[in-house]
Amino acid sequence: MSKLINFQTEPAGYRHWRVKYDGDIATLFMDVDEGGGLFEGYELKLNSYDLGVDIELADIVQRMRFEHPEISVVVLRSGKDNVFCAGANIRMLGGAEHAHKVNFCKFTNETRNTYEAAGDDSSQQYICAIKGSCAGGGYELALACNHIILTDDGSSNVSLPEVPLLAVLPGTGGLTRVTDKRKIRRDRADVFCSTEEGIRGKRALEWGLVDELVANSKFDEAVADTARKIAAKANRETARKGINLTPLERTIGEDGSLIYSSVEVSIDRDGEVATINIASPDENAPENLAALHQEGAQNWMLRVARELDDAILHLRFNETELGVVVFKTSGEPANVLAHEKFLLDNKNDWLANEIMLYWKRVLKRIDMTSRTLIGLIEPGSCFAGTLAEILFAVDRSYMADGEFEGDNRPVATLILSEANFGLYPMSNDLTRLQTRFLGSPESVDKAKTHAGEKLDAAQADTLGLVTFALDDIDWEDDIRVFLEERASYSPDALTGMEANLRFAGPETMETRIFGRLTAWQNWIFQRPNAVGEEGALRRYGSGIRGKYDKRRV
Amino acid sequence: MSKLINFQTEPAGYRHWRVKYDGDIATLFMDVDEGGGLFEGYELKLNSYDLGVDIELADIVQRMRFEHPEISVVVLRSGKDNVFCAGANIRMLGGAEHAHKVNFCKFTNETRNTYEAAGDDSSQQYICAIKGSCAGGGYELALACNHIILTDDGSSNVSLPEVPLLAVLPGTGGLTRVTDKRKIRRDRADVFCSTEEGIRGKRALEWGLVDELVANSKFDEAVADTARKIAAKANRETARKGINLTPLERTIGEDGSLIYSSVEVSIDRDGEVATINIASPDENAPENLAALHQEGAQNWMLRVARELDDAILHLRFNETELGVVVFKTSGEPANVLAHEKFLLDNKNDWLANEIMLYWKRVLKRIDMTSRTLIGLIEPGSCFAGTLAEILFAVDRSYMADGEFEGDNRPVATLILSEANFGLYPMSNDLTRLQTRFLGSPESVDKAKTHAGEKLDAAQADTLGLVTFALDDIDWEDDIRVFLEERASYSPDALTGMEANLRFAGPETMETRIFGRLTAWQNWIFQRPNAVGEEGALRRYGSGIRGKYDKRRV
Repeated sequence: MSKLINFQTEPAGYRHWRVKYDGDIATLFMDVDEGGGLFEGYELKLNSYDLGVDIELADIVQRMRFEHPEISVVVLRSGKDNVFCAGANIRMLGGAEHAHKVNFCKFTNETRNTYEAAGDDSSQQYICAIKGSCAGGGYELALACNHIILTDDGSSNVSLPEVPLLAVLPGTGGLTRVTDKRKIRRDRADVFCSTEEGIRGKRALEWGLVDELVANSKFDEAVADTARKIAAKANRETARKGINLTPLERTIGEDGSLIYSSVEVSIDRDGEVATINIASPDENAPENLAALHQEGAQNWMLRVARELDDAILHLRFNETELGVVVFKTSGEPANVLAHEKFLLDNKNDWLANEIMLYWKRVLKRIDMTSRTLIGLIEPGSCFAGTLAEILFAVDRSYMADGEFEGDNRPVATLILSEANFGLYPMSNDLTRLQTRFLGSPESVDKAKTHAGEKLDAAQADTLGLVTFALDDIDWEDDIRVFLEERASYSPDALTGMEANLRFAGPETMETRIFGRLTAWQNWIFQRPNAVGEEGALRRYGSGIRGKYDKRRV
Repeated sequence: MSKLINFQTEPAGYRHWRVKYDGDIATLFMDVDEGGGLFEGYELKLNSYDLGVDIELADIVQRMRFEHPEISVVVLRSGKDNVFCAGANIRMLGGAEHAHKVNFCKFTNETRNTYEAAGDDSSQQYICAIKGSCAGGGYELALACNHIILTDDGSSNVSLPEVPLLAVLPGTGGLTRVTDKRKIRRDRADVFCSTEEGIRGKRALEWGLVDELVANSKFDEAVADTARKIAAKANRETARKGINLTPLERTIGEDGSLIYSSVEVSIDRDGEVATINIASPDENAPENLAALHQEGAQNWMLRVARELDDAILHLRFNETELGVVVFKTSGEPANVLAHEKFLLDNKNDWLANEIMLYWKRVLKRIDMTSRTLIGLIEPGSCFAGTLAEILFAVDRSYMADGEFEGDNRPVATLILSEANFGLYPMSNDLTRLQTRFLGSPESVDKAKTHAGEKLDAAQADTLGLVTFALDDIDWEDDIRVFLEERASYSPDALTGMEANLRFAGPETMETRIFGRLTAWQNWIFQRPNAVGEEGALRRYGSGIRGKYDKRRV
């Protein structure tokens, strides 16, 4: 699986999904092309999915927010007759490398979280209408919806058969949503998750596995009826006109570097470091809302979010040996703040709001990226507001203190804005500054009193906003030594350490999915009982069950 | 490492610790015997520890509560000159099987949690006085204390060097206590946890890694002074007289079965099932407090807790292939309730209180046991109050419904008591019934209105207290089929599933340690970068650093 994975797609290129738009209701048909797997060696039978299927889903979910703001309800259905969805493709999982499995689960989780949050964030509700078998990752698709309808036809069912059948966990939030979202009684959850054939009909409703059970003869009618009712409650302005998410401009250099319009990724392969630079806008902020809508995908804030998102995904999947990601910025902080201020001043406009919500998701994607993340605040940089937020997502930051010899760019500064104090909560529901200052909440208030000021290195250090302030003499050596040192450590230990240090404080369903559930799944994903020659994942489909080492650990 | 591990010890047998009692202050010297490792193949240099060292510590902590209730402050110090503690022994970890490493970490975590909670539970504060290097598991010993004093001698330091040095995580709560208990700023935590040589002096204090920094020349004096101040605040009745925790009576049969005074463990090796039976007391509850103190370790509630605790630990370490633990009881529920009621009526007595606090810990130990846990409520059983609580710790329960042919024992019943509604919180700080009924809190209130009643299977089922109520006809077959099915599943997948389903709802520092941190550590504990031929754990001490696969996952 070493071919380059491209996360950019568009409706004309979909192979696995169809969307029907009807007023404020969209219907999303999952209709996976058996022969359309992203890699060789497996067929996507029974509406099972691989990363390629999920990249299209992520694209649909994203376009639903930007291109179809008139939609209040998205109905998720199967495009096939006898099956809803069989979950992640087992042969794909059985053949994939450990890193691919882990990153695949992370990406699918992020997509589920995105459409699950669409209701609260954007009054766009996802409902799931199940006919046929809805198993494993299929039921996890449903669990992330706001409402689940099941037909009562005597055979359609929901199941999480991973443990009995495959010796792995439902890895896309299944276990967590069963206990924390649907709050199924734990002994029933135990029965459900260890019953290969799943649960159907009245028991599924009684146990809380679905929200609505409808007679099979009235299925379409009931689904339409529920969709209309939910849409009516949303009371959305259907006159909203979406923007077009035009293809990203991206050039990949021979050395693997990436050039977008305002984002660049340079690669130091020997040093195992990727450096992401974000350039401030040259253009002025939109003059008014009409101008923003006119700009659409070209608006700097939206453009940078899309480019950064794509760069992160690219690094995660296609550049696994670059253990450190360095974030830099360049340009004029005032321009960054002007673009941000325009959105903040117009947060009642759906598009302005969606752009900020997208930044929230991109920043979370950074939080969840299993690389050492570093912020370098150099002369001539523009870490202001939303871009400064990146400094509170990284594992540590270095700020240049004062003038640097032979460098005539402006002295490094850091500027906080309103955006750093509530606009972009982390998955633990705290802001990054609240998480940072968990032990001294007064530091958040203190920092806030300095919002809008050009903070120099000494001030930023005093306020606790950067890890180290270094002058001209120490800068280069200190950072070089640190990067070399980091590259000499075990990538696995760093991943585990970072996953534990980044999310202090309260846990939420989301942190539990990425922390507890993912960690256990990663563990199981390398146990011989799952992935060994005689393990269940490898043997799946051979007619022979997995052979297990019976020792409990 | 297949020799039988014995968790019972007593002061006369200690090889690694010394305790000095002085009024209401005890001083605990860690002075590990290099040649006293539990297994062959390593020396416990530099006050490093293995399971044997920790079994003694657990014994000390337990006896401190029961035998030394006069103690307000326990000062933890090193008995060696130049080192506080080098942490878990690396050669032991490098050579140990995966299951041993995982169970070792779990047990050490439980011991740390126990003395950490002693302050709130029993006004017994642990303070840590550090002189010399305090590294890894050594600093984790300190982190679990209520107060940390460091000497400012220019070399003594605290460190978590696991990631840079060993390619594993600090696995005994270190990362979690750094972020959640001490609330260290996350970028500083990143620096601290990736700095092999640790942090000393003023920076250690400024960053919050220690609570008190004292001049080396005044170290002993300052430690004594702090101990006295904390002890004075506790204002403890020093006249309290402890009881003697006499050795447990235990017989191990040829087939591995265990017989204690009121607890029996029978083994079905083919079926991979251990069955624990708890017998109700024959004797009456103590007549008064004098009688309770006279009984001491022979008191039924205390005796059963100790026996059950020992049985669980034995099964965890010595019987890893028994994947299912079945809990049964036999006898007279009224006798169980009478003994429990005596404690509840006398909760202001320190001993009565300590016995209930011990039950809280034993029940948590059950929650944390990575086996499928089953409750079978048969005719003639005595699942009442504290014993009924076990039914809410297990993964699922089966209750016999009505009379069973040829069985003249009383029909199966279940009796709730005050003990089920707040006495025994889980690690998520909810009661087991609150966790069970997270989705319908009113069910807890409803159950409470039936406290004290002899509930039959139909009633227990209606109240949601059991998973299945089965009559004479189905009982044997259903349970046999279930046990066979469970035995056919992958132990790893079951462990991951159970770890996710058992702890719904809020997370606490404790659940984060056992969930997030432990899961990541388990993952890393089987990565080649740590445990492979060229991994850091294996290469430790060879002078050659680990060689790492640089791919991030």
